[in-house]
Amino acid sequence: MSTYKKIVLASRPQGQVSPDNFRLEEAQVPAIGDGQILVRNHYLSLDPYMRMRMEDVKSYAAPQEIGAVMVGGTVGEVVESKNPKFAVGDKIVGMMGWAEMGVSDGVGLRRVKDGPIPLSAYLGSVGMPGMTAWYGLTQIMQPKAGETIVVSAASGAVGSVVGQLARERGCRAVGIAGGPEKCAYVVNELGFNACIDYKAGNLQADLKAATPDGIDAIFENVGGEIFDACVARMNPFGRIALCGLIAGYDGEPMVLNNLRNFLTMRLSMRGFIVSEHPEFWPQGLQELGELVASGKLKFRESVAEGLAAAPEAFIGLLKGRNFGKQLVKLV
Amino acid sequence: MSTYKKIVLASRPQGQVSPDNFRLEEAQVPAIGDGQILVRNHYLSLDPYMRMRMEDVKSYAAPQEIGAVMVGGTVGEVVESKNPKFAVGDKIVGMMGWAEMGVSDGVGLRRVKDGPIPLSAYLGSVGMPGMTAWYGLTQIMQPKAGETIVVSAASGAVGSVVGQLARERGCRAVGIAGGPEKCAYVVNELGFNACIDYKAGNLQADLKAATPDGIDAIFENVGGEIFDACVARMNPFGRIALCGLIAGYDGEPMVLNNLRNFLTMRLSMRGFIVSEHPEFWPQGLQELGELVASGKLKFRESVAEGLAAAPEAFIGLLKGRNFGKQLVKLV
Repeated sequence: MSTYKKIVLASRPQGQVSPDNFRLEEAQVPAIGDGQILVRNHYLSLDPYMRMRMEDVKSYAAPQEIGAVMVGGTVGEVVESKNPKFAVGDKIVGMMGWAEMGVSDGVGLRRVKDGPIPLSAYLGSVGMPGMTAWYGLTQIMQPKAGETIVVSAASGAVGSVVGQLARERGCRAVGIAGGPEKCAYVVNELGFNACIDYKAGNLQADLKAATPDGIDAIFENVGGEIFDACVARMNPFGRIALCGLIAGYDGEPMVLNNLRNFLTMRLSMRGFIVSEHPEFWPQGLQELGELVASGKLKFRESVAEGLAAAPEAFIGLLKGRNFGKQLVKLV
Repeated sequence: MSTYKKIVLASRPQGQVSPDNFRLEEAQVPAIGDGQILVRNHYLSLDPYMRMRMEDVKSYAAPQEIGAVMVGGTVGEVVESKNPKFAVGDKIVGMMGWAEMGVSDGVGLRRVKDGPIPLSAYLGSVGMPGMTAWYGLTQIMQPKAGETIVVSAASGAVGSVVGQLARERGCRAVGIAGGPEKCAYVVNELGFNACIDYKAGNLQADLKAATPDGIDAIFENVGGEIFDACVARMNPFGRIALCGLIAGYDGEPMVLNNLRNFLTMRLSMRGFIVSEHPEFWPQGLQELGELVASGKLKFRESVAEGLAAAPEAFIGLLKGRNFGKQLVKLV
């Protein structure tokens, strides 16, 4: 194998992301230097944050450069090593981007053991999405047993973990998802107490029925009118972990209409990016790894086959077409 | 003196508060029972929170009852006592409402000493408004030396203290106020680094010029487009203490347009009511009292004469016509 495929950002989206924004390229497998390793990626993770990186706007990270390999988390295997810390065959988690292979000096890579946790889970429940859920729940929402928490995009990689961790802590967990199939999964498979289908056109009444004692904490992934409806049902001293605003990633105004409730109910809200809190990762990954290994923390994956399928899979993710953690299988 | 005057809520406002919403009544001075004291109020405090109490909506406090004496903070003097803890002549701070006199069992009253602090200041910088500023600044905004803080309604009872306490802590303090006279006072008398006149019609540019390094923390009293403009200039990890939304107290929608910045800049916001945090009062009042006694913490008062003037003074406060802490002198 002398060449490998990679996907670069061809152009920035005008509104919605389109396949034209990406370009598949073929590159020579490079010779590695001292201290480097060559990695063959098994899975690429597709995540909503990538949409924001495609914009050329001030945000928490530098924008993705035009012509550069799209940013992305990966799990893979060392296939050649001139770095004494890594051996051929080692499984590693890192940010190698939308590419079949990559060269690294090992910085920022995490070695994971073969065991009861499937390799792909390190991109989901035992990886960045799982840690995002863990951090938002334990550090911002801080729910007590008996409290009601609500999470949007509840069948997704992050939301599914939020609700299950909340159940572990004795909370009432209410999800919001699109369509009866996802909602049934959230309740029957993930064990949430209730799940509201926002596509059913009955949001206010369904939300009221699912949260008879109000809402004590929200994990927000979406934004828009659903978020406003949740804020309107918050109890005094409610906490909001603001993780994503996927409804606004194409440039739509992201408005909070219920600002008044922040005052009358003394609510708090904090936006966060889990990568900025590395001090919590060991503790969080420990809990998540144990729960996945024991089968208590369930997850579901949508797997696209082959790197060339990544752009369509990513566009589907932004529209909620995926069901569970969206991955691309590369080997 | 066998009768005294009081003002009761006659009706709830439909939109803006009008003088018709109040009714001046004359009442018999009651005979006091064992454990009670009779208080003659010297000053009544007028504060924006009273507007929200006039509504019959779910909020942090029960609404003011129709026909009951309007709620309000007062300083006064014990004129008769059958309570061993209080002597005739004692000066006390409490919530005796819009009334010239009142009977109390002493619960919730605070005795204050005659000294360098004027009695009226216990309704302002060394009272609830001062504590509101102190709590929001030290517990929510938590500014470090060198950071930039912005406070709206900067010449008012709360805002004036926020900026001065921030200056004491080595911050750049930027105020927002209505009109050149108030702005000149905020900078020249209170020592803020800058003050923006929101009536000058140049908000965005003036705000940019006054906050060249962005904004690290906001103390928000008003809401609306000025608040949005401030949120747009916040630095990563900025903190917002949400104290009031006076622009929305007549029922206007209170919208936050810049929700996206909470995510991209990882902002946090918390609404608060200082009376819910009594554990901080001794520490805060100690600092505020020392600063007022030594002349370092400056304040200004708007004093209406006589209880009958209270409704118009309150309506003026809601429209920003007052200049500094709004009081009503009762004796």
